[in-house]
Amino acid sequence: MESGSRGAAPGGVSVSAVLPAGGSGERLGGATPKQFCAVQGRPLVSYAVRAMERISWISDIIVVVSPENIETMKTIIEKYGHKRVTVVEGGITRHRSIFNGLKVFAENKFSSHLLQKPEVVIIHDAVRPFVEEDTVSKVVMAAKEHGAAGAIRPLVSTVIASAADGCLDHSLERARYSASEMPQAFLFDIIYEAYQQCTDYDLDYGTECLHLALKYCKTNAKLVEGTADLWKVTYKRDLYAAESIIKDNLSQQVCIITNVKETHAQVGFLLPESLKNQIKVEVISIPLGKTDSHLQNIIPAQCYNFVCVNDKRCAVQETQELVDVLEKSNIPLLYPVVLISVHLDISENSSFSIGVEDLTPIKKFARETKKKNILVYGLLIQCK
Amino acid sequence: MESGSRGAAPGGVSVSAVLPAGGSGERLGGATPKQFCAVQGRPLVSYAVRAMERISWISDIIVVVSPENIETMKTIIEKYGHKRVTVVEGGITRHRSIFNGLKVFAENKFSSHLLQKPEVVIIHDAVRPFVEEDTVSKVVMAAKEHGAAGAIRPLVSTVIASAADGCLDHSLERARYSASEMPQAFLFDIIYEAYQQCTDYDLDYGTECLHLALKYCKTNAKLVEGTADLWKVTYKRDLYAAESIIKDNLSQQVCIITNVKETHAQVGFLLPESLKNQIKVEVISIPLGKTDSHLQNIIPAQCYNFVCVNDKRCAVQETQELVDVLEKSNIPLLYPVVLISVHLDISENSSFSIGVEDLTPIKKFARETKKKNILVYGLLIQCK
Repeated sequence: MESGSRGAAPGGVSVSAVLPAGGSGERLGGATPKQFCAVQGRPLVSYAVRAMERISWISDIIVVVSPENIETMKTIIEKYGHKRVTVVEGGITRHRSIFNGLKVFAENKFSSHLLQKPEVVIIHDAVRPFVEEDTVSKVVMAAKEHGAAGAIRPLVSTVIASAADGCLDHSLERARYSASEMPQAFLFDIIYEAYQQCTDYDLDYGTECLHLALKYCKTNAKLVEGTADLWKVTYKRDLYAAESIIKDNLSQQVCIITNVKETHAQVGFLLPESLKNQIKVEVISIPLGKTDSHLQNIIPAQCYNFVCVNDKRCAVQETQELVDVLEKSNIPLLYPVVLISVHLDISENSSFSIGVEDLTPIKKFARETKKKNILVYGLLIQCK
Repeated sequence: MESGSRGAAPGGVSVSAVLPAGGSGERLGGATPKQFCAVQGRPLVSYAVRAMERISWISDIIVVVSPENIETMKTIIEKYGHKRVTVVEGGITRHRSIFNGLKVFAENKFSSHLLQKPEVVIIHDAVRPFVEEDTVSKVVMAAKEHGAAGAIRPLVSTVIASAADGCLDHSLERARYSASEMPQAFLFDIIYEAYQQCTDYDLDYGTECLHLALKYCKTNAKLVEGTADLWKVTYKRDLYAAESIIKDNLSQQVCIITNVKETHAQVGFLLPESLKNQIKVEVISIPLGKTDSHLQNIIPAQCYNFVCVNDKRCAVQETQELVDVLEKSNIPLLYPVVLISVHLDISENSSFSIGVEDLTPIKKFARETKKKNILVYGLLIQCK
């Protein structure tokens, strides 16, 4: 666990985050709480942790889980290489869990050492995997200025109040109300004060942090319009949607690496162009052999697809180098990496059958890398 | 277009449905209005129409679309074989479109003949593809008794009101409110009266039919708890979710058809058992050759997967018969049908290579049926 200041936060404040992940997920209809459900093979909570972890100016990430899931959570953190995360035991309700998470910065009993109290604390859900840095940044800035802030979204359905007989009492004018979403952010002293002041009834039956800040600290939270991807995974269909969004995002960018001579590099030029036309991908071309330093630049850009074009017939060596670089990064820990190794065969006298045999080593190699979550495919192109 | 009474509706009332499908789908982020977006190759509106059409006691289904989409809608109805549907030109808002839909039963100018006015009219969205008969039935019964009724769901997020400065004014206690969903149902005379009485402001800025019934006819709608699958396709992620749910539903049931002798029928017995253990499917066994009448019973059960087990080596004939029956139904129009033709080879002296060759006719046959949305796969099992 690392701690302390890292990147420069918006407004220069110190920022940490608390992720309540203690829910039982009963609306999902399964035995596994939704935050631990696998999406593309990885638990949902790991995506939310990653979303916070990618933001360099967030110092500590406190994940609050129910006692029976502490070991599970620690295993997830180790398996996916998450950093700056502290696991804290939750209470029996959402508010009690968040309060426990905040106490880590104020009391000494929850971790081996007292974490440095941040000026602003973000509260985000473990079941909202897609929050962007821009949104988090806006909420933090607004919290610094107003004491509290939260993301909102327009209502999708009309909200209605029912009478005791189960009939409509009145409906709300949709335009005047919003759905309160996450992330929210608070000056630490305000939200901690609110939790210290609030009643057992609030802790047991309330769910809304903005309400506590208003009720106990007279702080009217600034409301920040969030993006559509802030929604909370609640039902099974939301898991389907999350999986599709992740797959979609993974296919948005491809990095093309080539070392072929210019005269034979048409494929290297045509491939990016045709990809651009057909599937709207970002293309980055870098020369092979200098992959190491270049890949360092690609990693923050979240690229999970690589096409490596070379003119050797069986370039397992080059592919191995690239796999080594990828393995050193923690990219394949988080998502499957696709690596297509294209071999341009420009010799006059080669026959197709020999070419196919040449692919045997890369097939063997691919079986090994698959265990590391790197999917290697070989492609032989003969240009006669 | 058919009209008039069909099955027996709950409570013996006559029932028709209006589906507003005039929205622009701007929240989806695409050029195509969401109701016309393809899910598994079929427009979303077709699923909603099908959901109504499956309910035999709904007499007429009025689909209200914007003028530019009338031809598109008519093409969809023809292509997917929808019955009892009348397409009506919508207004510029949701309420104006629904009003137009209702006028079909009260005024003579909208269709070639005046449709019979139903006692109860259902209003459902074109972008809610998964409504079950049970829910529709409950809402109709409640409407008959109370004059108006609507499905509701618990709120997923806290609802908040903002002040003019963009800060939190107050948050609503989540347990006291619900999300108003569809379907809704009304005594026709009540909702038609409400639309006739209501102001231009209501027609232009309102969205909630239950509100109109309350405001203009003093009818407090009965609220009926709906299932989680009633949600409205609003964002792109909802299209992903809808697609996954449809795929999931399609894989829930398989029909096994077999004509093999008992002594060799182990596969026929073991297959259902192992399927039951592994993927929780419903299994229906019927003898081949009597498929016609039996399939008539399966069609309402929404089965899209067939396994046909026989002991002939190349049973294209039998497969053809089954394909003919399927084609006559409109099942493949709505969803892809999977038909796995299993050939049990129990002869002592056959060799594998001959067996593989025998599959050539079925491969050719499969190419043809694919055009009809029937996916035929051949499987040769040699038991020595």
